[in-house]
Amino acid sequence: MAAPSKAWRPPASLAAARGMKWIKEIRFGPYGLVPAIVQEGGKVLMIAYMNRRALELTVRTGYAHFYSRSRKKLWKKGEESGHVQKVAEIRTDCDADAILLKVRQKGPGACHTGHRSCFFRAVRGGRLVVTDRLRFDPGQVYGPK
Amino acid sequence: MAAPSKAWRPPASLAAARGMKWIKEIRFGPYGLVPAIVQEGGKVLMIAYMNRRALELTVRTGYAHFYSRSRKKLWKKGEESGHVQKVAEIRTDCDADAILLKVRQKGPGACHTGHRSCFFRAVRGGRLVVTDRLRFDPGQVYGPK
Repeated sequence: MAAPSKAWRPPASLAAARGMKWIKEIRFGPYGLVPAIVQEGGKVLMIAYMNRRALELTVRTGYAHFYSRSRKKLWKKGEESGHVQKVAEIRTDCDADAILLKVRQKGPGACHTGHRSCFFRAVRGGRLVVTDRLRFDPGQVYGPK
Repeated sequence: MAAPSKAWRPPASLAAARGMKWIKEIRFGPYGLVPAIVQEGGKVLMIAYMNRRALELTVRTGYAHFYSRSRKKLWKKGEESGHVQKVAEIRTDCDADAILLKVRQKGPGACHTGHRSCFFRAVRGGRLVVTDRLRFDPGQVYGPK
């Protein structure tokens, strides 16, 4: 593992993508957004939304950026927690209206609740049940709210 | 493998979910929809949208149902192709505004283009490149358009 202080170099395949013409093929939907699924290995970590600028920043920096619909602003994943996502691959679907990011998640988890994945609940016996253990204490990472 | 003619029984955990009170916790967004990521093993097959009725039908039948934004109607995945998705698990995320379905995909693929996954293209050298092989001939499955 590289020390956290070392600069992250996006993989060559992504760096070469800095010619960003392909982004014109992405069909941004209502509000100029597309959903972006974030996956590490076989695990889906989260889903968030990207506008064109967030996608460009993701390609340019190699770190996942999104657009927050609630806060109405661009954000770099992990900007507060340090739990950034280094992008290894960018995929799109048949309709080019969704993005799939394959990442390396830095830190113990992607979710602000302290879980590895935001999808930490499953339906069991007619209820939503937490199936994943906590990986970190959100209070320690984000401070008191 | 069960013969295709045999009825599919959803797993007990899902069947028990037929008490569908938990669906009230799902926060359907604009247009009453939530995105639903469909995953088989470690592979993300597709993303589609569900309204409340599609989610209820998915739980009740054990087969993935969605709402088509373009056709403005409910659909059962595979209703035309036979490539249905048997739901093994339903998960939701921290905000309860997205669904993750773990499925068994019937037939050679989930995508109408003939690929296993709709995410069959990746960014390589500044272009979108098809990285996955065709699994079936869409013309044979869906007939001439």
